[in-house]
Formats: sequence, C-alpha cells, structure tokens
Amino acid sequence: MTQTPKSIAIIGSGLVGSLLAIYMKKRGHEVTVFDRRPDIRKTEFSGRSINLAMSDRGWKALREVEIEDNIKEIAIPLDKRAMHVIDTPLYFQEYGKDGEAIWSISRGVLNRRMIEIAERSGVHFKFEEKVWDVNLPEANLYTGETEKGEWTEYRFDIIFGCDGAFSRVRHKMQRRSRFDYSQHFIDVGYKELSIPANPDGTHKLDKNSFHIWPRGDFMFIAMPNLDGSFTCTLFMPFEGAISFESITTKAEAKTFFTTYFPTVQKEIDNLTEDFFKNPTSAMVTMKCYPWTYWDKVALVGDSAHAIVPFYGQGMNAGFEDIFVLNQIIDKHGDDWEHIFQEYQEVRKPNADAIAELSYRNFLEMSSKTADSEFLLQKKIEKRFAAKHPDKWIPVYSRVTFSDRPYAEALAVGDAQEEIMRRVMQLPEIGTQWDSPEVEMMMLDGLREETVNMD
Amino acid sequence: MTQTPKSIAIIGSGLVGSLLAIYMKKRGHEVTVFDRRPDIRKTEFSGRSINLAMSDRGWKALREVEIEDNIKEIAIPLDKRAMHVIDTPLYFQEYGKDGEAIWSISRGVLNRRMIEIAERSGVHFKFEEKVWDVNLPEANLYTGETEKGEWTEYRFDIIFGCDGAFSRVRHKMQRRSRFDYSQHFIDVGYKELSIPANPDGTHKLDKNSFHIWPRGDFMFIAMPNLDGSFTCTLFMPFEGAISFESITTKAEAKTFFTTYFPTVQKEIDNLTEDFFKNPTSAMVTMKCYPWTYWDKVALVGDSAHAIVPFYGQGMNAGFEDIFVLNQIIDKHGDDWEHIFQEYQEVRKPNADAIAELSYRNFLEMSSKTADSEFLLQKKIEKRFAAKHPDKWIPVYSRVTFSDRPYAEALAVGDAQEEIMRRVMQLPEIGTQWDSPEVEMMMLDGLREETVNMD
Repeated sequence: MTQTPKSIAIIGSGLVGSLLAIYMKKRGHEVTVFDRRPDIRKTEFSGRSINLAMSDRGWKALREVEIEDNIKEIAIPLDKRAMHVIDTPLYFQEYGKDGEAIWSISRGVLNRRMIEIAERSGVHFKFEEKVWDVNLPEANLYTGETEKGEWTEYRFDIIFGCDGAFSRVRHKMQRRSRFDYSQHFIDVGYKELSIPANPDGTHKLDKNSFHIWPRGDFMFIAMPNLDGSFTCTLFMPFEGAISFESITTKAEAKTFFTTYFPTVQKEIDNLTEDFFKNPTSAMVTMKCYPWTYWDKVALVGDSAHAIVPFYGQGMNAGFEDIFVLNQIIDKHGDDWEHIFQEYQEVRKPNADAIAELSYRNFLEMSSKTADSEFLLQKKIEKRFAAKHPDKWIPVYSRVTFSDRPYAEALAVGDAQEEIMRRVMQLPEIGTQWDSPEVEMMMLDGLREETVNMD
Repeated sequence: MTQTPKSIAIIGSGLVGSLLAIYMKKRGHEVTVFDRRPDIRKTEFSGRSINLAMSDRGWKALREVEIEDNIKEIAIPLDKRAMHVIDTPLYFQEYGKDGEAIWSISRGVLNRRMIEIAERSGVHFKFEEKVWDVNLPEANLYTGETEKGEWTEYRFDIIFGCDGAFSRVRHKMQRRSRFDYSQHFIDVGYKELSIPANPDGTHKLDKNSFHIWPRGDFMFIAMPNLDGSFTCTLFMPFEGAISFESITTKAEAKTFFTTYFPTVQKEIDNLTEDFFKNPTSAMVTMKCYPWTYWDKVALVGDSAHAIVPFYGQGMNAGFEDIFVLNQIIDKHGDDWEHIFQEYQEVRKPNADAIAELSYRNFLEMSSKTADSEFLLQKKIEKRFAAKHPDKWIPVYSRVTFSDRPYAEALAVGDAQEEIMRRVMQLPEIGTQWDSPEVEMMMLDGLREETVNMD
C-alpha cells in the first residue's frame, strides 16, 4: 500500500537506525537520523563490540531493500564451530545441513557501509547532535550541547527510537504510568581482544569457523575479520576466583591465558595488552511495553528489547523488527496508529522469546558445558535429529536458519526439553542411550506434544 | 553502639521518610528532610490514597521510638472482615485468635502527626524544595524551581531516598551499569471514594471491620476513619466490559453501584460524585538492586520495593526496613558501608517475598474468589488450622500478626500449597474433605516438608 510521505526522525545511527532509514526513505518519506556520536565513518571503533553473526533473519531484512549482496562483500561465512577444549584436540561442529552458515561481520565496517547506503539514498544524518527530550504526543525533539543549556526544537510526524539499550526515547516513555519496564544485568562481563593477521594477511586460525574456548564459568570466542585478524571476546564473571576483578597484573593475565587458552599461546602478548587497554562491559536483558506511543513514536531494536549476546541474535532481531514493521505498513498504509499497534503486538512475544533463549544459552554455557548428563542428552538429541531430520529440528537451527517466529522456536524447544526430561529419567539411560527403546520413546513423545513441531 | 553524628538528608516527607527522620534524630544525627510537595499539615489530602492498615510490623517499628501509643490514638482496630457478598447476608470473618487486629489509619492524619513528632524532636523540614539531581559518591543534592533553572547545592554525609515508587534518588542510581530494575503495572486501577458519617458522627457500617465487597474482577473496600466516615477504594480493570473506561456517565455509575453494591445503596449519590471527581490511579510492583551506594546513599521503603496494596503491607514493610536498619546500626556503629551492605542483603529477599505475596493476593482476589475448588481448599485449611493451630498458621497471620521474615512466610505458604495440591487431587475430596484421611494426609505432608513450619 502506498503511503503519504511523512517527516520522520530516527534517533540513533547504529545498525537498526540506518537500516530503518533505508526502508523509510525507500517508501518515500523524508528521513533525518540523529546521533549524539560523531560520524562512525570518520572515527576509530570503540573496542567494545562483540563481532556480529548475521543469520537468516538479518539477510532477509537486507534482501528486502536489495542490499544483501552489497553487505555479503564484507561478511565471512562460518559453517561450523571450532571447539578448543582443554586436553582435547581441536574439533569442528557443523552448524547445519547443506552448508548452512552464520556470517561474521565487523560492527564498525557494517555500520559505516549502511550509513553510506542510507546517505546515498537521500537520508539526512545529523551527527554529534544529542536528543535530550522528546515530546511524545507532538513528536517534537529537543537537542543541544548540554542538558541544562539552550535546546533546538524539531517537529516531525513520526519519531523512531533506535537508540539502543539505554534509549533516551524509551526513557521518556518510561516516565508514563502503566509502562512496564525491566533491566536485568548478568554477573558476567565481556572484554574485546584481538588476534592480528599473519604477516601475509592470512588468518591465524581457520577462517570459516566460529572459534570457541568453553571453560564453564568463562569463555573465549573469536570471529574472523576480512583483514586476516580475529575479533575475540572474553566472557568472564566480574567478581570471584577467576574474574575480571581477580586479574590485576600483566603476569596474572599471561598465566590466565597460558593456562586456559593454550591454542592461542603465541598471541598472549597481544591479548594481555588488549586486556588492560580495553574496557570491561556489562550485559543486560531489557524488556518494556508498550513500544509505541499513538501514531507518533515507536521503539525498534535494542531500545525495545535488549538481549544478552549468547545466541548471536541481537542485530538479527532488530532487523526482523524492521522487516515485520514494513510488512504491516503494506497492510495498513497511512493508518500509523494501527501500524504501530500491530507492530508491537506481533513483535513483543517474539522479542521476549529470543530474550529468554539468549539468557538460557548464557546459563547453559556457564553451568552445563561440563555436566556429563547434559552432554549425554545433547548426544541423544543429535543422534535422533540425524535419523529424523524432519521431526527434530534443533532450537538453534530454528532460531538461526529459519524465519519462523522466535516464540515458536521457544515453544518447540520447551516441548523437546520435556521429552528429554522423561528420557533422561530412564534408569539405564547411560548405557541404553542409543537403544531403539529411547528412539521409540522420543517418537511417542513427539506424537503426544501438542505443540506443532513441523 | 554509639555513632559519630552525621549530617543526613532524607528525600521525601512521607510516612517512611518521617519515621526514618525520627530514628536518625534520636541517634544524634543532624537530619534534614526535603519534599517537593507543600507541608501536608497545611494542605488538603489528595483523594488518591488507600487507607492504611497498620499491623504488627508497623507497630513494632513505632514502639522502638516510643510513639506507638501516640499513633494508636488515631487508629481504629479492625478485628474482622465484613463480607458483603451478593445474595448472601452480611457475614464476618475474624482475623485471628485472641482479638488480633489490623488498625485503620488515614494516611494524611498519620503523616501529619509523624511530621509533627519529627519536627518537635529537632528534624529540619524543607518543603516545596524539589531534588533534581544527586551526586551519589559525594552525597550532594541539587534542588531548584525547575529542571533547567538555577540549582542550589547541598552537601551531606548520607542521603536516604524515601521518595516513593517513582524515586528520583533511585532514578539516579538506575543510570549506573549493573543496576537491576523492574516496574510492572497491573491492569487494575483504583479510585478513592468515601462514605460520610451519620449526622450524629457515628459510622454507617460496623466500625471495627474491614469491609469487603468481592466481585471477582473488581472489588470495593471500606475502612473507617475517626470522624465516622469511611474511606473506600474501588479496584477495577482500566479497560473491559466492567471497567473504569466503560463507566462514563452518572447514570452508568449509579447503575453500577446499585447492581453490585446493594449494601451501600443509600450512599450512591456520594459515591457517584466521588467517582467522577477523583482520579483513577495505577498500581505497580517495583523491584531494584542494589539499594545502596557505598556508605553514602540508601533507598528505604517504596523507593526500594513498591508493591501492590492487596496485602496491606506497603507501609508496614517500609517501617520494618527502618527497624531492621536500626538494629544493623547497633551492630556496626560508624561503619556505614557495612551497615548499608547488610541492610540491603537482609531486606532484599523479604521485600521480594512481600511483593510476591501481594501480587498473588491480587491474582487470587481477581480470579479465584468465585472458584469452588479454591473455596473448598480454603475450607479444608481452615478446619485443619482450627484443630492444629500450632501446626498450620495461615500465611495471612504470618505476614500480618508476626515479625518473622516475609521470606519465611512465603516459603511456608509454598509448602502448605504443595500439601494442599496433593490433597485436592484426591478423587473423593468433594465429599471426603472433612475426613480423618485428609487430616492424616496433611499431618504427613507437614512431616515431609523440609521447610521449618514452626
């Protein structure tokens, strides 16, 4: 459905803000993007980003505005996990069938390119202009040098808050009565580190793998960049025996890396330097509702639903918000009140679902990777899925290599979990895990479960 | 333990703020209370308060600073519920054994008296002075006419945020990383209404009862005032078939009151007038953590743990915060960092417990009062408690007529609930509810439960 052109402000020039700008401009609207930060095309990156893993939902949203190929130029497909387990030779786990892959992209490189695309399409960017206040019913913005100084007023028809987990736009909505809100931090922080390229520009570890060093309470990961380097992230508790707090000297850092990450021994000087140079960041799950105000204001991406990064879906979920919003616009045309109402009703349960799945992945990685019963369960599931690929699609695949709703993936996952709970209670499961009885029990379980597991 | 006198600011002159001021002044500190509102002793009340029910925890906190008797002068003991059930004659339910009672107090009358007591003891009050900002590590305050205007700076040793569910002090803490926070509104609102006294100053309904008109989705309550009037509260969904939104004319309001509250038919003109004069207010459960910042700032009362009012414990929980804080001060003397650390660790689980119990009471009242299975369960519990009063103390009594931790009441309640879940599954429970078998089953259940149910 065509739309009357509106004057639209987008707060935040990050990934979600710039993609939404591209979508809205393509629909013929006048689009201005505000960002309190300088133009990322002219600055260094911050050293506090986890590399991105673009998966099916993200690509689908890019495809819709015909920039998928453009972005694939700066992405590296990863078709497997490379598992660096202590006292075990390096081994690989393929992600899915038929070469299914997630794609490693540097946040900074991607963001620069998307702003470039948006600007070329006619989007107007206002960098280093901080929005201090929003008049929600009027869709007016107030920007200025300082909170207490002179402000400039802007009037728009519609404002989108794409200003991330600590959104100023949401902050304004939050002061209204009957606005539900929660922010929950986990006790684990993260720090960006890096592994440089070989002198000839090649990668020091397998390029097409997502590298993981799981260590129970903490974890190290590495994702490749185009220039041969890897962007790595160390996830570790803030406090405790092995924690960011407990490592205070270069010698302690070196001992830590040598002890727990022997496969990157040669990089230790680099990693140690980064360890003290880069900040330690916190991770939060943020939920809120409503996401919109009349036909005037809407939150998109992290500002509406920030999640912990352990499913690699933060950006994908934000891009899917935009894809779904665009579909709803197709249905309702100029009726923005309906558009916003349906948008939040459709997306909220899915945002809650991916938040839950991401948080569970965090719990799983911190507490269960060394649990033998958990590993046995995963082995049984894997065997069954290989034999009945149409009947048992793992939740990871449903989230990563599908565009079915996140809420469905969560529900199916719960149903699978219930079947496995019963299977794992079998007294002889340790020895009988690959028996026909277990297989039958799982097939029966699938028949009983009311959730649609197609 | 004695303390070095400190310069203490308390933000908020409500019930918790004024009681804390009395406690701190008694310890020899210099106490200044800030409130953005005018002195409540010089203004009309707002018409948006649910009358208070002081119970054991509240009295205990007042007794500690020797103002229990003073406050009892303005309180009316309620030793029973008066149940106004449709098509059923009015009946009464006693609260406990030995005349146990909750005490009805007007919020405004109580607040005026407590400010009076605090001021006479030497506490300094600054009314109509709004705190816009707090420097947490320095314990500095900034007040002024407007957010963007000139501010006055005050320096203190310690700041207490007693500024309620929408606390400005907490708001400042919330912007720090790793601060957990949630606000969850329920879909039911409330409105204050009143029933005036008889011409001779007597009460129109039984004076020593908490009057309840339970109607499933909505509910009307009335609590006596000293002047013969009743302060009433109508709890009702904001939206829906029978809701604040659906009643828009005086005729509709009259029909509503006549249909559902026949026992207050004579008051309908009054109630109808109040209905359109008084605002509809929202109810929120607010949780956060931490509650303190170093040895500088602490949240007390609703600012740390706002709860829905369905257990009548909001004020009691806030007063208990103060009582417990005071005990901890006795232990640690001048070590305010330890005091604040222990205070939040001890109180947080109890605040979460009373929040949960209050929310469950809301769910119970909205969905279960008409459920025959629920009523049968309550009948069985009541019979058992009467026969074994030492073995089965109802959760309501544990919360209201005890000073044992809220968290313990919640745990015992869950254990009782688990026993009853099994009892209610008996196929013949409808006819066998008063059989020796059921009694034995409950006794066995109590023996099995690991939670201490003394």
